Amino acid sequence: MSCSSLLGLCQYETNKLVRIQSVRLGSLKWSLNAAILLFICVMMLWNRKYQEFDLVVSSVTTKVKGVTEARLPGVGDMVWDVADYSGPSQDKNSFFVVTNVIVTKNQKQGKCPEVPHTDRLCKTDKDCERGAWDELSHGIQTGSCVKFDVLRKTCEVSAWCPIETKRSPPTPAVLAAAENFTVLIKNNIRFPAFNFIRRNILPKMNSAYLRSCQRANDSLCPIFRLGDMVREAGENFSKMAIEGGVIGILIKWDCNLDPFMQHCLPKYSFRRLDEKESNRTLYPGLNFRYAKYNMVNGVEERTLYKAFGIRFDVMVFGQTTIFIDWLIGTSCYSAEVGQNYSEKKVESVQDNQKVV
Amino acid sequence: MSCSSLLGLCQYETNKLVRIQSVRLGSLKWSLNAAILLFICVMMLWNRKYQEFDLVVSSVTTKVKGVTEARLPGVGDMVWDVADYSGPSQDKNSFFVVTNVIVTKNQKQGKCPEVPHTDRLCKTDKDCERGAWDELSHGIQTGSCVKFDVLRKTCEVSAWCPIETKRSPPTPAVLAAAENFTVLIKNNIRFPAFNFIRRNILPKMNSAYLRSCQRANDSLCPIFRLGDMVREAGENFSKMAIEGGVIGILIKWDCNLDPFMQHCLPKYSFRRLDEKESNRTLYPGLNFRYAKYNMVNGVEERTLYKAFGIRFDVMVFGQTTIFIDWLIGTSCYSAEVGQNYSEKKVESVQDNQKVV
Amino acid sequence: MSCSSLLGLCQYETNKLVRIQSVRLGSLKWSLNAAILLFICVMMLWNRKYQEFDLVVSSVTTKVKGVTEARLPGVGDMVWDVADYSGPSQDKNSFFVVTNVIVTKNQKQGKCPEVPHTDRLCKTDKDCERGAWDELSHGIQTGSCVKFDVLRKTCEVSAWCPIETKRSPPTPAVLAAAENFTVLIKNNIRFPAFNFIRRNILPKMNSAYLRSCQRANDSLCPIFRLGDMVREAGENFSKMAIEGGVIGILIKWDCNLDPFMQHCLPKYSFRRLDEKESNRTLYPGLNFRYAKYNMVNGVEERTLYKAFGIRFDVMVFGQTTIFIDWLIGTSCYSAEVGQNYSEKKVESVQDNQKVV
Repeated sequence: MSCSSLLGLCQYETNKLVRIQSVRLGSLKWSLNAAILLFICVMMLWNRKYQEFDLVVSSVTTKVKGVTEARLPGVGDMVWDVADYSGPSQDKNSFFVVTNVIVTKNQKQGKCPEVPHTDRLCKTDKDCERGAWDELSHGIQTGSCVKFDVLRKTCEVSAWCPIETKRSPPTPAVLAAAENFTVLIKNNIRFPAFNFIRRNILPKMNSAYLRSCQRANDSLCPIFRLGDMVREAGENFSKMAIEGGVIGILIKWDCNLDPFMQHCLPKYSFRRLDEKESNRTLYPGLNFRYAKYNMVNGVEERTLYKAFGIRFDVMVFGQTTIFIDWLIGTSCYSAEVGQNYSEKKVESVQDNQKVV
Repeated sequence: MSCSSLLGLCQYETNKLVRIQSVRLGSLKWSLNAAILLFICVMMLWNRKYQEFDLVVSSVTTKVKGVTEARLPGVGDMVWDVADYSGPSQDKNSFFVVTNVIVTKNQKQGKCPEVPHTDRLCKTDKDCERGAWDELSHGIQTGSCVKFDVLRKTCEVSAWCPIETKRSPPTPAVLAAAENFTVLIKNNIRFPAFNFIRRNILPKMNSAYLRSCQRANDSLCPIFRLGDMVREAGENFSKMAIEGGVIGILIKWDCNLDPFMQHCLPKYSFRRLDEKESNRTLYPGLNFRYAKYNMVNGVEERTLYKAFGIRFDVMVFGQTTIFIDWLIGTSCYSAEVGQNYSEKKVESVQDNQKVV
Repeated sequence: MSCSSLLGLCQYETNKLVRIQSVRLGSLKWSLNAAILLFICVMMLWNRKYQEFDLVVSSVTTKVKGVTEARLPGVGDMVWDVADYSGPSQDKNSFFVVTNVIVTKNQKQGKCPEVPHTDRLCKTDKDCERGAWDELSHGIQTGSCVKFDVLRKTCEVSAWCPIETKRSPPTPAVLAAAENFTVLIKNNIRFPAFNFIRRNILPKMNSAYLRSCQRANDSLCPIFRLGDMVREAGENFSKMAIEGGVIGILIKWDCNLDPFMQHCLPKYSFRRLDEKESNRTLYPGLNFRYAKYNMVNGVEERTLYKAFGIRFDVMVFGQTTIFIDWLIGTSCYSAEVGQNYSEKKVESVQDNQKVV
């Protein structure tokens, strides 16, 4: 094959180089090279972290255990177990524990006087507009002004009667004993790219271990006391129980799948996710209303619960590093090799030129 | 230390350069340099956006307020408050508001004729297969063919009787007044890398502000009228209320933590997330069935609700830019510096060579 | 304008080059160049995938259909429809189907003997501590030791009585027929960057198609039999139904929006997300307790359900490639162009130098 017809393929061009013998410049060159390589590798490693980040496919299931006796105002002593205090919801990556509650029993559809707030009193029917309601209403105004108690009159409303009257949560919290409840968190992760599966209940854990393990001694124990989690998040359970709130359970999987130093263990940490910016807070905590409905002699009744509680959001983060380490290793290495290789191609010029 | 023994460290090699005095080439060089730098920086900034994206740790809680009176077919007038219209679920980042409902009262376990659809009529027991059911069934066939009404016979089924008969949602929607309900959205975000926390209820907001603020005048108001959100998503509330749907509430945090121009405020926007590809749609909207159970004289009864409604999904996006800006600044700057630096090392060759 | 005052702008510096005529070196150069370019483009394409990944805004709604008759121990035959077996929750991207259940009827607040476990028997009141409870308790100990049955005595507890006694789930699963239930999954996605919207119910699908389509023949059918999904995940439904579990429904949107080869279709796959690491498992499956509450003659009763079931988590992944392909194409192309361009500027030196 004639080389002249494939000129591009047969030619090799390289820079003419000057080799300067100088300690100052030599070390400067090397430190610059090192710094640039370091920078590139750091950037790549840093990027990688986030790229892998979304790659974990995770499944979380939780199981709360515990039982407590609580004196509910207007209801009396009552034992609460998990079906009672979990509230009505079964979310995927979070669970809710009721810590405080305002109960309004035996509500029926009917007409009754609205609860008086500072600016809600009326004198005559003219003060009440039929059909009106606003954000603070418990029902639709009928247009009448009726007696709320001996002293005060308020607009009558169509509503679930009697209306919930208590506005601030009981102190101390009715179910503050939830501090001693425990939760078992089951977390399975999968790195699809590596077809690697892992579970936070490790193979070495048996049922005796799980019954006795404690977070204080053993950071891998998958059973947590609610009180411990809140304390690790820097909060006081009894205080938080009053208004409720949100605690994040962060599970971090830091895995290295390289054959010689394989390790892949979860690390648990806890943070309060709401209400930290300022001391004074508007609309603090977390509460919602739900009701249990009954038919009594063909009439629907309900018991209204305003439940304050703590929602625990489980968040799983993960990264793993086998293939990518290899890739980065290779690329950084090949950059070095490339450089070394190119350095062999210099014209061996040795001059003691000074450079300004 | 002898330099010859550390040759690699003491040598400095640099390219032999040719300096050409040419306006055309000079400006070409500079614009190429600028373009490449720009490209690199744009790529980095662009990547950064998405990398930071998943870094926000966010917590959302919502609280819907409002009350309405609705005439339910077969039930009568009824006041609905939040415990009634929220449905049975308390999801983490979304809330549901019932806007339309089909109620079937006093269902009991028993046997009754299946509801006739176009192709569900029978003539004799031979047309009915004991144990059979399909997607449209309300129960398990007993094998008998019984009278549904004066004209039609259908297969008898074991089911909750009487069977829900109405198939299409009432028009207009029973709870269309939900348009005027409001929701308070509390969103706390955290950029873990910077240990920076922020809340969408800003420190300057007090309770008087929150009672009166309106999205129309004030884009930071964290209280939203449901109707406004749907309208901003380009939809008609009364229409959407009939079949239900999904509205996305997008909260975008665009934060700059640089000391001199710190700003970090949320921006709210709204989109309909379902049903937009085509005009004609199959299985439109969002509805699900739930039931309230009762024991009546030892027999379980239930009231079945087919609830149509709007699910509001809160999605939080965030990015912040202090450290990375610095890093990018530095790297782009150092690239420039490096280039300038290297340019000082040229052999000062000045020729007026022409280049083709 | 004098060029000497703008020296930087008018000068152009370029390396002195040596052109070597050598097949070996020439082809080496080209393969190195190609390798580096390939590496850069692969890295960019690879990054892109994940960057787009989090960009999909997706909404999922699901609708389960099916009805079954089940014989509940202690309750009798009962028809279960969707309101019964969905459990109490309506999650955003997942749905739950009860497959097995332990029912404890007519529980009332009261005092009764704790259920005996291996180490829970007592002889006298001294063995019972008033107020005590632990993870396995069903109530708060009263301090008395009472008869559980003819042979055994256990500590009395304040609890919901009678206490749930059965501990392991019925085999075969009570609602194993859920295998034949179907679910319609509606998924809308949006690539905000491209303002592109897509729905998994394609425009060509009509209601006749949806009534008859089957996953076995048609991978785009959006209606799935629960049993098929579990089988595709490599599991046995009847076995899984006993203890419950978590199945992931992965929807992958691989879209190319380039005008000449536009395609954008969903691909469904299924995986079991829990319990795969080892054969022997502690705390297998998925179950939770919920209760239906009733007022009977003014006393609250409840029916406790320990529901075992399968949670189906829908996960949507997506990527699209129009703009970015163009960008990458351009940049890789321009890198080539730049290189070619720079190669035109060499001093045409042709020497046959040998290089060590």
